[in-house]
Amino acid sequence: MQAVDLKHAYRLLNHGPTVLVGSAHNGRSNVMAAAWAMPLDFDTPKIAVVVDKATLTRELIDATGVLSINVPCVAQAELTRAVGGESGKDHPDKLQRCGVRFQSGALTGTPLVEGCTAQLECRVLPATAHVAGPHDLILAEVLGAWADERVFSHGRWHFESAPAELRSLHHVAGGFFYATGEPVA
Amino acid sequence: MQAVDLKHAYRLLNHGPTVLVGSAHNGRSNVMAAAWAMPLDFDTPKIAVVVDKATLTRELIDATGVLSINVPCVAQAELTRAVGGESGKDHPDKLQRCGVRFQSGALTGTPLVEGCTAQLECRVLPATAHVAGPHDLILAEVLGAWADERVFSHGRWHFESAPAELRSLHHVAGGFFYATGEPVA
Repeated sequence: MQAVDLKHAYRLLNHGPTVLVGSAHNGRSNVMAAAWAMPLDFDTPKIAVVVDKATLTRELIDATGVLSINVPCVAQAELTRAVGGESGKDHPDKLQRCGVRFQSGALTGTPLVEGCTAQLECRVLPATAHVAGPHDLILAEVLGAWADERVFSHGRWHFESAPAELRSLHHVAGGFFYATGEPVA
Repeated sequence: MQAVDLKHAYRLLNHGPTVLVGSAHNGRSNVMAAAWAMPLDFDTPKIAVVVDKATLTRELIDATGVLSINVPCVAQAELTRAVGGESGKDHPDKLQRCGVRFQSGALTGTPLVEGCTAQLECRVLPATAHVAGPHDLILAEVLGAWADERVFSHGRWHFESAPAELRSLHHVAGGFFYATGEPVA
């Protein structure tokens, strides 16, 4: 993974991939899948993501004010379905069950998922509780970003020249994904 | 275009396509491209989209409280680049210049762009000005949704069985798009 210039961090999410949201508090880490994530600003880079208040992820984020956003790839479709399909509330060993390996981010302590093509460490924007409340919406600043240089280099994705299993996932419904496709002339 | 059950409206944006945002006020209509759009809720269906305060689109939406979200397809890549590349402020005849044909939505009067594979009519949620202000973020309820039955039927997209030019666009940077790709096993 190579560091991504923060001014290009929005591009990691610009094409609309499904993401994995990481959280950690008091020694407990969790990862969930989320299709509803997007960039919110270029510079300072910010993102928006919807995380249901009923989730363990939301509890951990609310407790710490930080989260990670990870961009899974085709090779991780089964993992993505798995972490989207069960709750860390029901399964304290969810990450082990789902085969999620991660490192804790240096900036936030949140899980950066191994095998993902991009990883962002983020801090929830203060004074957005009135938004998060009614709409489950989290607005966050990107503190650091990394990407797999096989598919993201010089500030943009290059899926067409990399192995197909490194393409992003775009969730339709019920665990069914389309991969990112071909360049459009 | 066939009506989409409102409970499935979120699926029109779930895979992260670039969209065209439509607006109209006092006989003036505008359409701009936006890569930063996502579902916000299932039922009542809601969406979130980032629209810069400097745009004509934002002026028109702020004046009326309504907008349309249209999902362009590969056949409309040039049109999407065009409406993303110039402002209705500079060019009062922007839609004609860019080859945008539309009908005015029955529910909101906003432009529903011909050739798009999905069209949503939306109403800005009240009391979200504190969000829109600092972050250019618009939160809106979906009042009605339509989709091209060649690619969206029975509540989900079916790109794999339709002409390739009907696939969605996913913006990377600088007018470069990837098409929605193949189903992931």
